[in-house]
Amino acid sequence: MDLGTYLHEKKIIIEDTLRDICSSFSTSPGMLRDAMEYMLFSNGKRIRPILAIAACEAKQKSSDDLLPFACAIEMIHTYSLIHDDLPSIDNDDLRRGKPTCHKVFGEAVAILAGDALLTEAFRVMADTRYTERIHLKIIRQIIFEIAMAAGAEGMVGGQVMDVLYDGKEGTKNILNFIHTHKTTSLIRTSVRTGSIIGGAKTKELTRLTRYGECIGFAFQIMDDLLDAEGNEEIVGKRLKKDTSKQTYIKHYGIVASKIRIEQLIEEAIESVEFLGGNSKILVELARFIGNRAL
Amino acid sequence: MDLGTYLHEKKIIIEDTLRDICSSFSTSPGMLRDAMEYMLFSNGKRIRPILAIAACEAKQKSSDDLLPFACAIEMIHTYSLIHDDLPSIDNDDLRRGKPTCHKVFGEAVAILAGDALLTEAFRVMADTRYTERIHLKIIRQIIFEIAMAAGAEGMVGGQVMDVLYDGKEGTKNILNFIHTHKTTSLIRTSVRTGSIIGGAKTKELTRLTRYGECIGFAFQIMDDLLDAEGNEEIVGKRLKKDTSKQTYIKHYGIVASKIRIEQLIEEAIESVEFLGGNSKILVELARFIGNRAL
Repeated sequence: MDLGTYLHEKKIIIEDTLRDICSSFSTSPGMLRDAMEYMLFSNGKRIRPILAIAACEAKQKSSDDLLPFACAIEMIHTYSLIHDDLPSIDNDDLRRGKPTCHKVFGEAVAILAGDALLTEAFRVMADTRYTERIHLKIIRQIIFEIAMAAGAEGMVGGQVMDVLYDGKEGTKNILNFIHTHKTTSLIRTSVRTGSIIGGAKTKELTRLTRYGECIGFAFQIMDDLLDAEGNEEIVGKRLKKDTSKQTYIKHYGIVASKIRIEQLIEEAIESVEFLGGNSKILVELARFIGNRAL
Repeated sequence: MDLGTYLHEKKIIIEDTLRDICSSFSTSPGMLRDAMEYMLFSNGKRIRPILAIAACEAKQKSSDDLLPFACAIEMIHTYSLIHDDLPSIDNDDLRRGKPTCHKVFGEAVAILAGDALLTEAFRVMADTRYTERIHLKIIRQIIFEIAMAAGAEGMVGGQVMDVLYDGKEGTKNILNFIHTHKTTSLIRTSVRTGSIIGGAKTKELTRLTRYGECIGFAFQIMDDLLDAEGNEEIVGKRLKKDTSKQTYIKHYGIVASKIRIEQLIEEAIESVEFLGGNSKILVELARFIGNRAL
């Protein structure tokens, strides 16, 4: 199967599961559901849940059991986009080619829709309707790992530093903190979650984790590059607005940024060599992330 | 032990645990931690975790195992206060007699501090450092119940309706939805969480749940009364600002509101009669909630 077909098929499976999850909070206020679904189904690439599925399947395990966790990660990613776009944070009015959540539903409902997506993500993982068949110890471990990756020492921590150093001088250390926390953290955990459900042994998990870290970091450098050099219509959001932010381009320049992406993708690919032929999709996904449309 | 001493002792235990939890995210950005701790230690009454402890102890079980869950509930309550106070939601500049979180740390950090508190609440419950001794099935059940109570069909759902019906005509049904979701939901779950850790059987849990619902609803009517008739210095926030909101006073008047509180407190007390002498603290807590300083 070529990567395009793989991405398309997995996206459908993920979105079917997300739709089923949305039907499970049917007694919530209509406008709240609308705001949550507006952003949840706004043509996202589903990179994080697809990485989780690919890691699970690389261990030759069906990803059926993984789907609720993979969707929980996508819900957490979606909440983070809604909150990041708010006027007091990044003040974006366009996301994936559509008006941002607060532009459509107002700031109050957007904040609350983000809160609800984050809360429901944890509900789904602990809901017997979705994870009955999973060993309880695994559920606990994955909830813990995802909360760590998304919380004060993970994604939110990175986002706070991103806000605090907007318009400031900054250092390479600060940049590194922001990129590893804001973006890498949740991507790394997506790969780990898929690997854990796939039954990866300790040493395998270490290698797969490194794969996740490398593509997570490359993903954020690519985001910086797209902001500097990308096409607004293809990328689907306002570009050239990160000039005041801590970006890889700002601290290292465009050429070094492209070289760093290549190095990271190579390291990611080496990290999953132990999987032999089963690494095919993970390898192609790494290359795909290293070559997003510029 | 009289109720004043009980409240004081439990508050110390809860705050010691909360401080220990805060030390567990020590690698997060300093300003994020400061904002989380500013609101987490702003002289809250700790009603929710104390109710959980009282329910647990009413079943003659030590509340040691319960503490991480009780603190997780308090963290979720705290995040909801930070987000409720934001300019685009309730636009409050005073809470518990102090400037609100966004007044001190700015809107962006306040939003993110709320996000972090919510995420870390789930992390704590799944963290072996805190809940190693608890049966995994119980951990899963409590995470599920708390997420349900706090999410789209619980607290956040109620908050959305509160925002949407601000300044609108509204109906008694709408008021009932807001009060049962925005406030009652998490208080009910506090009592349930304590009861579950305390080992309550199905029938006992049903009675204790009813106790939680009654005091939760009474608590919100009392909040409406305090806003209409209270003393700003004692209550610690700006009052007489809910005139555009759906309140019990608006739909039923002051006299009927006071009568309803009394009825709810009586029903709460009756609901825990089955506990005999062990109901003492729960009964006193119900009376305490029915008599908050006017």
